[in-house]
Amino acid sequence: MVNTGDTAWILTSAALVLLMTPGLALFYGGMVRAKSVLNMMMMSFGALALISVLWVIYGYSVAFGNDVGAGLLGDPGEFFGLKGLMEDTTSEAGGYPVMAFVGFQAVFAIITVALISGAIADRAKFGSWMVFSAVWATIVYFPVAHWVFDFTLTDDDGAVTHTGGWIANNLAAIDFAGGTAVHINAGAAGLALALVLGKRRGFGRDPMRPHNLPLVMIGAGLLWFGWFGFNAGSALAANNTAAVVWVNTMVATGAAALGWLLTEKLRDGHATSLGGASGVVAGLVAITPSCSAVSPIGAIILGAVAGVLCALAVGLKFRFGYDDSLDVVGVHLVGGLWGTIAVGFLATAAAPAGVDGLFYGGGVDQLWRQVVGALAVLVFSFVLTYLIGLVIQKTIGFRITEEDEITGIDTVVHAESGYDFASLGGSGGATLSGQAHAEARNTEGATRA
Amino acid sequence: MVNTGDTAWILTSAALVLLMTPGLALFYGGMVRAKSVLNMMMMSFGALALISVLWVIYGYSVAFGNDVGAGLLGDPGEFFGLKGLMEDTTSEAGGYPVMAFVGFQAVFAIITVALISGAIADRAKFGSWMVFSAVWATIVYFPVAHWVFDFTLTDDDGAVTHTGGWIANNLAAIDFAGGTAVHINAGAAGLALALVLGKRRGFGRDPMRPHNLPLVMIGAGLLWFGWFGFNAGSALAANNTAAVVWVNTMVATGAAALGWLLTEKLRDGHATSLGGASGVVAGLVAITPSCSAVSPIGAIILGAVAGVLCALAVGLKFRFGYDDSLDVVGVHLVGGLWGTIAVGFLATAAAPAGVDGLFYGGGVDQLWRQVVGALAVLVFSFVLTYLIGLVIQKTIGFRITEEDEITGIDTVVHAESGYDFASLGGSGGATLSGQAHAEARNTEGATRA
Amino acid sequence: MVNTGDTAWILTSAALVLLMTPGLALFYGGMVRAKSVLNMMMMSFGALALISVLWVIYGYSVAFGNDVGAGLLGDPGEFFGLKGLMEDTTSEAGGYPVMAFVGFQAVFAIITVALISGAIADRAKFGSWMVFSAVWATIVYFPVAHWVFDFTLTDDDGAVTHTGGWIANNLAAIDFAGGTAVHINAGAAGLALALVLGKRRGFGRDPMRPHNLPLVMIGAGLLWFGWFGFNAGSALAANNTAAVVWVNTMVATGAAALGWLLTEKLRDGHATSLGGASGVVAGLVAITPSCSAVSPIGAIILGAVAGVLCALAVGLKFRFGYDDSLDVVGVHLVGGLWGTIAVGFLATAAAPAGVDGLFYGGGVDQLWRQVVGALAVLVFSFVLTYLIGLVIQKTIGFRITEEDEITGIDTVVHAESGYDFASLGGSGGATLSGQAHAEARNTEGATRA
Repeated sequence: MVNTGDTAWILTSAALVLLMTPGLALFYGGMVRAKSVLNMMMMSFGALALISVLWVIYGYSVAFGNDVGAGLLGDPGEFFGLKGLMEDTTSEAGGYPVMAFVGFQAVFAIITVALISGAIADRAKFGSWMVFSAVWATIVYFPVAHWVFDFTLTDDDGAVTHTGGWIANNLAAIDFAGGTAVHINAGAAGLALALVLGKRRGFGRDPMRPHNLPLVMIGAGLLWFGWFGFNAGSALAANNTAAVVWVNTMVATGAAALGWLLTEKLRDGHATSLGGASGVVAGLVAITPSCSAVSPIGAIILGAVAGVLCALAVGLKFRFGYDDSLDVVGVHLVGGLWGTIAVGFLATAAAPAGVDGLFYGGGVDQLWRQVVGALAVLVFSFVLTYLIGLVIQKTIGFRITEEDEITGIDTVVHAESGYDFASLGGSGGATLSGQAHAEARNTEGATRA
Repeated sequence: MVNTGDTAWILTSAALVLLMTPGLALFYGGMVRAKSVLNMMMMSFGALALISVLWVIYGYSVAFGNDVGAGLLGDPGEFFGLKGLMEDTTSEAGGYPVMAFVGFQAVFAIITVALISGAIADRAKFGSWMVFSAVWATIVYFPVAHWVFDFTLTDDDGAVTHTGGWIANNLAAIDFAGGTAVHINAGAAGLALALVLGKRRGFGRDPMRPHNLPLVMIGAGLLWFGWFGFNAGSALAANNTAAVVWVNTMVATGAAALGWLLTEKLRDGHATSLGGASGVVAGLVAITPSCSAVSPIGAIILGAVAGVLCALAVGLKFRFGYDDSLDVVGVHLVGGLWGTIAVGFLATAAAPAGVDGLFYGGGVDQLWRQVVGALAVLVFSFVLTYLIGLVIQKTIGFRITEEDEITGIDTVVHAESGYDFASLGGSGGATLSGQAHAEARNTEGATRA
Repeated sequence: MVNTGDTAWILTSAALVLLMTPGLALFYGGMVRAKSVLNMMMMSFGALALISVLWVIYGYSVAFGNDVGAGLLGDPGEFFGLKGLMEDTTSEAGGYPVMAFVGFQAVFAIITVALISGAIADRAKFGSWMVFSAVWATIVYFPVAHWVFDFTLTDDDGAVTHTGGWIANNLAAIDFAGGTAVHINAGAAGLALALVLGKRRGFGRDPMRPHNLPLVMIGAGLLWFGWFGFNAGSALAANNTAAVVWVNTMVATGAAALGWLLTEKLRDGHATSLGGASGVVAGLVAITPSCSAVSPIGAIILGAVAGVLCALAVGLKFRFGYDDSLDVVGVHLVGGLWGTIAVGFLATAAAPAGVDGLFYGGGVDQLWRQVVGALAVLVFSFVLTYLIGLVIQKTIGFRITEEDEITGIDTVVHAESGYDFASLGGSGGATLSGQAHAEARNTEGATRA
C-alpha cells in the first residue's frame, strides 16, 4: 500500500517542478532584447518536450537503474521504456509508487538542460540546441543524476538490493535537491557553451537591456513557487523534513533578495527589479543542496551571502570576457558552489540531515566531501560540454550568422516576432477613442455615476 | 473517515484545473490582435464566473444526480443548491468528501465552456457570449458530463445505490479525464459557433498575427501545469493510477510538441513558438481520454501522432472556409477524436485501465465503444450548439458590427484597451535617461563598480 | 506521527499562498502607468523578501508564542529564531509538523504587508517602503495575527497548555482565514498611508489608465488559484471543512465577478476587464472570513453583494479625495468588513463553523462579535499605520519629489524601465520581414502546404 499523503505531495511537487521550466522561459525571455524573446523561450520549451521523451525511453534507467560499475552509471536496459514500473510498483525507498518518483525526477532533468540556455542567448541555432540537449542529457545529466540522487538500498537483512551512485553513497556528500547535479552542472555547462559559441555582437559595448522586466518578475515568482516542489518535494514524503525544507527555502530566498538589493544600492545607488528577481534565484540555488542540513537562521545567513556573492559574480563575465548572457555562471555555478560547500560550515545536527558543519562543532570531514562532490561535477560537466559544443559547432554549426544576429533570431530562426501592437495604433493605444467609461475608476467620472 | 492523502490530492488538483481557465485566457489572449485581447480573455473569465455559480445551483445535480432515465440526465432536484452535501458527507465512490468532488468537477465544466470561445475571436458580443455560456452549459455540458463521468454505484450486496450515465456505464467507453465530454464537446461546439457567426472581416486575406507570443507561451505553460490536476486528479486518489497518468501526461505532451515542431520545420522551414505552444495543447488534449489506458511508450506514440495530426488539421479552416479563429476544431476536436479513438488501438492491459487495444491483442470491441462515444458527443454537441447559436443570433444578436470589428472589440464592447505604453515615451522607453546603472549587468560598467 | 495527507495539503497551501504575492505584484503592476510598473511590483517582492526573514527571526513568536497578557501579544522569546521547532515537533493542534504551520502563516504575514502598497502607487521611496514594511509587520501585523489566528489549547485533562489571542478566544469572532487580520488590516493601513502620502500629481484629473490589463488578469488568475491555499488551507487538514471552503471560495468569487460586471454594465454601459479582475478579488476578500460559516448558496449571495458593494466603493476615493490608487480601501477594507460582518447574518449551523447567523435563526450575538472584531482591527491598524507613516515621512521621507513623479518612479528610483521594444522597430514589429511562414496558421498559406 502506498502512503497517499506522501504520494499526493510527490505528485504535487512534480507538477510544481514542471512549472519551473515555463517559469524559467519567462525569466530568461524577459531579460533578452525583444527581438530574441521567442528563441529564448523556445530553448526552455524545446528542452521540456525533448527531455521528457528521452527520460521515459532511457534516461530514468541510466540515472536510477542498478549501478553498472563504480557508481558512475545505471543500467540503461533495466527500466528501458519504463518497463515493469507501471504495474502498481511501490518504491523500496518509501511509501509511494515508483512512477511518482519517475515523474518527479523527470522534471529535474528537464530544467537542468533548460538552465544552460541562458548562457547562449540570442545566437544559437534552434536545431543545434535541440541536438545539444539530447546529447548533453544523455552523457552528462543522466549519469550525474545517478551519482548524486541514486541511493543504494538494502533489505531487512542488510543485503544490498540496489546499488546507486558514487557521490550519494561512497562520497556521502550532502546534496538534498541538486546543488551539484542541477546547478553546478548547468552552470559549468553554461560556461563551456558560452566559450564555444563566443560573444554576442556588441557584448560589453551596446546596452542589452532586458526588454520586459515584468516578465522577468513573473518568471522569478513562478520559479520560487515551483522550487517548493523542487526542495521540499525532495523529502519524498509529507513530513517534518519537508516542512523544515519548505521554511528554509522561503527564508534563504528572501535573505538572498535582500542581499542582492543591498549590494546594488550600496554599489550603484539603486536597487533594481532585475536585481531583486536575480537575488530570488540566487537564494533558491544556494539553498537547494543545503535545505535539509541548516537551521532557518543558518538559511538566512546562507541566503544573504548568496545574494551578495552572486550580485558581485555576475560582473565577472565582463572582466574575463565570456558572454554568459543571462548569468548562468554568476547565479547557478557560483550559487550552487556556495550552497554546496556552505553545508560544510553551516550544517547543524538539529536539522533533518543530522550533520554538524564546522561552525557547529563538526570537523572538516563533511566540508571535504562537499568540495570533492562539487568539483567532480564541475569538471566533468565543463569538459564534456565543451567537447559536445565543439563537435556540434564544427559539424552542423551552433551559432547563427552575424547578419542574422542583427536582424534578430526570432525573425530568422522562428519566422515570428514576439509582439505586434500595431492594431492599437500609436504608442500602445494612447489615442484610442470611446473609452471615457474605462477611466471611471481613475477619474472623477466614477463619482458621478 | 476520509483518506487525507486522497483528499489533499483532489483539492490540489481542483485548484490546478481552476488555474487552467486563466491559463487558457492567456493562451487565447496572446493569439489575437492587440485590439481584441481583453475581450478574448474576458470570455474565459466570464465563463469561469458564471459556470461556477450555475454548477452550485443545479449543474452538479444534473451531472451527478441519480439518473432520471436512459442514462441521459441526472436528477436536477437531488442536489439542488448542493443540498445535503456540506454535512461531512464522504463519497460512496472513494475516501474523500463529496464536496471535494463537487469542486473538482466544477472546474471541468468551466473550462469546457471557455474552450469554445477560441472559435469566435474578435467578433462576439460579450453579453451574448454569457447567455450562450449559460444555455450551453445547461443543455449540453451538464448532461454530457452525466453520460461520461457519472458512474453507477452498488453497495456491498451488489444493489445499485446510484445510477449514472450511458457512456460510462452502458457503452463502457474509456474516457479517463474528458476527451469526449470536454474536448470533442468543446471542439464540435466551436465549429458550430464559427459557422453561425461567420468569418472575421479579412479572414484568410489579412495577416492576423498573434500580438503577444510570450503570453501564448505563459498560457501553454500554465495549461500543462494545470493539466496534471485534470488528468492525474481524475484518479480521485493519490495512488499508482495517478502516478502513471502523471507520467503519461508529461510525455505525450512532450512528444506532441516535438511532432508539431517537426511538421512545421519540414513543411515551412521554421519551427515556431506558436507551433510549440499549440503542440503542447494538442498533446494534452489527446492524452486526456487515454492517459490511464496506455503505457508511457504508448503515450509517446499517441502524443507524437497528435502533434503531427493537429499541425496539419489547423489548415483545414482555410480549405473549408470556416473561421475557427484559434483552432478549437483543429486542436480540441481533432486531438480529442484521436485520443479517444486511439484507446482502441494503443490501450494495454498492463496500464491502470486494464484493457487491451487492437495493437496489444485486444479485439475491435473497445475501439467500437470509443468510436460510438466520440461520435455521440460530437453530433449532440454540434447540433445543439448550432441551434443555440442561431437562436441567440436571431434574437439578441451574437456578432458585433463590421465597423466595430475594425475599430476593435476591446474599445467598443469593454471601453478599454489592453495596453498603454505611452508614459514610457518612444518605442517602449528606448530613450529613457538616467538609467546608466540599470545597464550594469549588461555592459562593462559592472566591472568598474 | 504526522498525518501525511494533512501535511501535504498544508505544504501545498503554503506554496499557493506564497504565489499570491507575485500574483499581487502582477495585479497591481498592470494597473499603474507603464513608467511605474517596476516600483509597484518591487513593493510586493520587497515585502516578500523582508517579511519572510522577520517572520523566522521573531514574527512567528510574537504571533504564536504563548500570550504575555490580555491576548494582545505572544512571547517574542519563546520561538525566537524558530528555536526548538525544527526537531520533528508535531503540532498540538493537529497532525502536522509545527514547521508546516510556520511556513503557512509566514505567507499570510507577507501578503498582508504587500496588499498595502496598492494605496501608494507611483510615489513612495522604495527604501522608506521597506522600513515601513518592517515596522508595520512588527507592531501591527504580528500582534493582530496573534489576536485572530492563535487559538488557546488545552490538554486531555482540560488544562491550558497554550494561551492565544483575544479575538479568537475571548471574543470568539469567526474569521476563518483572515478577513480581519489580513484584509481589514491592510485596507485600514492603506487608507492611512494614502492620507499621509497625499494624492498623486493629477489625481482625479489626468487619466491614469492601467498600462497592461492582461497583466492585471494574469494577476487575478494567480490570486484566485493561490487563494484556495489561503482559505481551504486554513482548515489545516485535508477534510470536509477544507472541501466546503474550497467550493465556497470558488463560487463566491464567481458571483462577485458577475456582481461587479453587472454593476458596471448598468452604470456605465460597459463591463470591463478591470471590473472583472477587481470583482474576482472582491469576492475572494469577502469569502475569506466567512468561508467555513456559510453554505454554497450563502456564498453566492455573499459574493454577489461583495461585487456590487466594492464596485460602488471604489468611487469613494474621488468623492472624499484620498488617492487610494489601486483600491485597497474599496476592495480590501470594504470587502473585508462585509465578509466579516456578513457571517453574523449568513452563517448556517450546517456549515463547518457550526454557527447560525441572523438569517438562519441565530441571535445578534455572533453579529456583535463580528462587528467588534472588525472595528478593533480597523481602528488599531489605522491609528498605528498613520503614526508610522507620519514618522517615516518626517524623518527619512516617504514620498518622491513631484519632478521625479513626472519622470517616472521606475527610472528615478530603480534606474530601470519596464519595457523596451525598440529592437523590434516600428510599433512592436509591425514591419518585420521574412515571416511569411509565421502567418501559415492565419492565412491561406497553410492550405498550400
